[in-house]
Amino acid sequence: MAVDFRGHPLFPRGFNSPTRFEADVYDCEVWGEIPSDIEGTFYRLQCDFAYRPPENEWLPGFNGDGHVSAFRFANGSVDYKGRYVKTDRLMAERRHRRRLWGVYRNYLTDDPLVANVHRGAANTHLYWHGGKLLVLKEDALPYSIDPVTLETYGSWDFHGKWTATSMSAHPKIDPVTGEMIAYGYQARGDLSDDIAVYTVNPAGHITNEVWLKSPYLGIIHDIAITQKYIVIPVIARTTSLERLQSGEPMWVWDGSLPTMVGVLPRDGDASDVRWFQGPARNTLHFLNAMDAGNRILMDLPVSDEERSPSQIKRWTFDMNSRNDRFGEEAVSTANGVLARMDDRYLSLPYRYGFVGNSDPSLPFDEARVGGRRRVTNTYQRYDLMGGPTSTFFVGDTQSLQESGFVPRKGSTEEGDGYVMGVASNYAEMASELHIVDANRMEEGAVAVVKLPFRLRSGTHVNWFSAAELAEQEASA
Amino acid sequence: MAVDFRGHPLFPRGFNSPTRFEADVYDCEVWGEIPSDIEGTFYRLQCDFAYRPPENEWLPGFNGDGHVSAFRFANGSVDYKGRYVKTDRLMAERRHRRRLWGVYRNYLTDDPLVANVHRGAANTHLYWHGGKLLVLKEDALPYSIDPVTLETYGSWDFHGKWTATSMSAHPKIDPVTGEMIAYGYQARGDLSDDIAVYTVNPAGHITNEVWLKSPYLGIIHDIAITQKYIVIPVIARTTSLERLQSGEPMWVWDGSLPTMVGVLPRDGDASDVRWFQGPARNTLHFLNAMDAGNRILMDLPVSDEERSPSQIKRWTFDMNSRNDRFGEEAVSTANGVLARMDDRYLSLPYRYGFVGNSDPSLPFDEARVGGRRRVTNTYQRYDLMGGPTSTFFVGDTQSLQESGFVPRKGSTEEGDGYVMGVASNYAEMASELHIVDANRMEEGAVAVVKLPFRLRSGTHVNWFSAAELAEQEASA
Repeated sequence: MAVDFRGHPLFPRGFNSPTRFEADVYDCEVWGEIPSDIEGTFYRLQCDFAYRPPENEWLPGFNGDGHVSAFRFANGSVDYKGRYVKTDRLMAERRHRRRLWGVYRNYLTDDPLVANVHRGAANTHLYWHGGKLLVLKEDALPYSIDPVTLETYGSWDFHGKWTATSMSAHPKIDPVTGEMIAYGYQARGDLSDDIAVYTVNPAGHITNEVWLKSPYLGIIHDIAITQKYIVIPVIARTTSLERLQSGEPMWVWDGSLPTMVGVLPRDGDASDVRWFQGPARNTLHFLNAMDAGNRILMDLPVSDEERSPSQIKRWTFDMNSRNDRFGEEAVSTANGVLARMDDRYLSLPYRYGFVGNSDPSLPFDEARVGGRRRVTNTYQRYDLMGGPTSTFFVGDTQSLQESGFVPRKGSTEEGDGYVMGVASNYAEMASELHIVDANRMEEGAVAVVKLPFRLRSGTHVNWFSAAELAEQEASA
Repeated sequence: MAVDFRGHPLFPRGFNSPTRFEADVYDCEVWGEIPSDIEGTFYRLQCDFAYRPPENEWLPGFNGDGHVSAFRFANGSVDYKGRYVKTDRLMAERRHRRRLWGVYRNYLTDDPLVANVHRGAANTHLYWHGGKLLVLKEDALPYSIDPVTLETYGSWDFHGKWTATSMSAHPKIDPVTGEMIAYGYQARGDLSDDIAVYTVNPAGHITNEVWLKSPYLGIIHDIAITQKYIVIPVIARTTSLERLQSGEPMWVWDGSLPTMVGVLPRDGDASDVRWFQGPARNTLHFLNAMDAGNRILMDLPVSDEERSPSQIKRWTFDMNSRNDRFGEEAVSTANGVLARMDDRYLSLPYRYGFVGNSDPSLPFDEARVGGRRRVTNTYQRYDLMGGPTSTFFVGDTQSLQESGFVPRKGSTEEGDGYVMGVASNYAEMASELHIVDANRMEEGAVAVVKLPFRLRSGTHVNWFSAAELAEQEASA
């Protein structure tokens, strides 16, 4: 039975049709000059489709196979490597040469052939920690891959100490202690209301484990950390056994549910968690959080309704207050769904956010049409100290994916470095990596790495310097 | 110094700009159904450019790096693999991350760094013989690569018995004896007028060797064989030391030179060669030859002048004649520069030719514009027994490259099988392999293998059945 994506509503023949190949480019073509103070690897994950998914999907981007792109920088040159994560999920499908997995996170719709196969798709985010490159998908254990060859080693359970059934794709690495704060939800299996929170030391060993109960079965896609607290928002996308039995994908938006935010002291246990509450909010990813006396400030792109414009806002949790409400105020009008920062300042007071935006000359309301985000053709740096917003415009025929911040080698000052991200060049039907000096964004890319093929739009990215990769590998 | 092809006159940003990547596609997307009687591998070679060539090239397609595409068919599925041949030439450039080779076959323009490096580019044609997949370029020894992984083993000298300095890209395999008739020209080094002709037995051992002198320094890109003779045309593209010293590529057309054709008995020695003569003719590749009593009939695409339309003609060599002229008559008006046949009938009387053509509804003269071939958008089967010409039309947005004939598994009748070739789909900016039933070409492709990327236009192709690949490997 031949693979044929024609007629599938999610897969036009265009730029974002499945990539399906693994490739190497030695010494990529580069327009401009790679700055000599960039040394390390830019990793980008993509949710791809080896086989044709079911047609009743609402999250087509999240129900496919993890595909890693690595851009390796050294001495002003870049080599590219793209590989699938060889998950048990993918390899089972390859063996049978057809789709075996059902709709998004609904095990009742899977083919019986994969009833006992690890479902981890490794398609959302990747982190380098404890000498391992972990590729993550929130409903299963992570996969560990080689940071250079991208060869898949297998799933990883932290020396047998990760007792939860899943690990989310958005752990947080504390730049001060080097610890990774990670968690799983539905942590005793699908539909369970358990949350497991782990602290992992820089050598990759679990040093603390706390189990919580979620107020309801909402999505817990991301968390935030400060130096004192772990902030755990539960968002109003919900599910139930009945829903899975109806054959639908796991999640459905329910605006009648509250936003519940658990605040757990980093040195606390389950009895120390405090749940704050607010109206339903549509958000998935959080930019940063920090302590301000006994208050916690948390910045995030969020919208009021399921389909209203996203905006960078600040939530405030007052640990001295007697009530359980959190505060909310706007920080920037950049829509910011691809918000990133200089991760050396994560969990700490910070100044700069780096976000993707559609044409910034449009008034905020017009930057969204029909509830859908327009093409993202700028990266913007906004300044929480009130300085002007800087804008990089990629071009008329390109759209931008999530950026990563790349510190200038040898520099420690916040925001001193590069904003790097992959663009889809529709005119050339090819992907390209844009490298923008974060202090001179208006001047355009200092270098563009031109790939000789198109890559389906990606999910998340991370940069790890050569020094960082070498150092952790030695210590782990 | 970054790789940047911008501004090079030979490399627009379009479809045929350098490929530069190696890739794997597991279980290619297929439109239609792969016939179950196709089992084996379709190999396609491409001249690619890892680094930017000099700008004064007239043969940009031939002065780059060999890049092999393999489409492996089994059980109705196809897997794709693309790899560079890891020639010493390519690896030297990779090491220095820049172009080191000068203009086409002019060693005086090479960088001194590669003065002692094997110059074989392995970019023209490939043959499976004696249990080895040989990748050929006429100015050097061949490379041997793995037929499955495409890994490069190294250059190959036939157990030390290939004493010539080069092997041409167009040996001939005798389907009756399984022997390979192969040769080198400029066979004692660049600009030498020596021709070395070898017979290689099915196990890959040289059994005969004949050295000839070329009448002048013309190109000897291809030969033909019959059951009794080897036909060796010397064509009026010539060269000289003065030309190389001027910094130009090796060849220049000189219409004042004759076409000289050596006819060597397969069991003869140098004293048995007979040279026939005719006016200058522009041709590179020969379709077939056969014995007809004491005459040799040889079919080939050929044009009268350097830039006039190419046409399939028959040259006749009368071994009984006393004069040294050969005859010429037209066989078909298909322009036929990509002419191939059912290779099981090579050197024998045959019926069908398979050629690429531009829109066949155009009068022959209009099928060429300004001396340049128009887009090749059809494959045609012409019938030397006078039957109608069959035509496969690929589509308005595609152009076709050389086809290979794929015998239907288990069948021995001439022409019973498939015509297979890669098309450039400009609308989708992607390459695709079309599989056409040779007996029903008007009905269109029975299957199209859709690659998720574009490949620069290729040079030559060959099909080897799974049985053939297994059998020879065992015997060699």
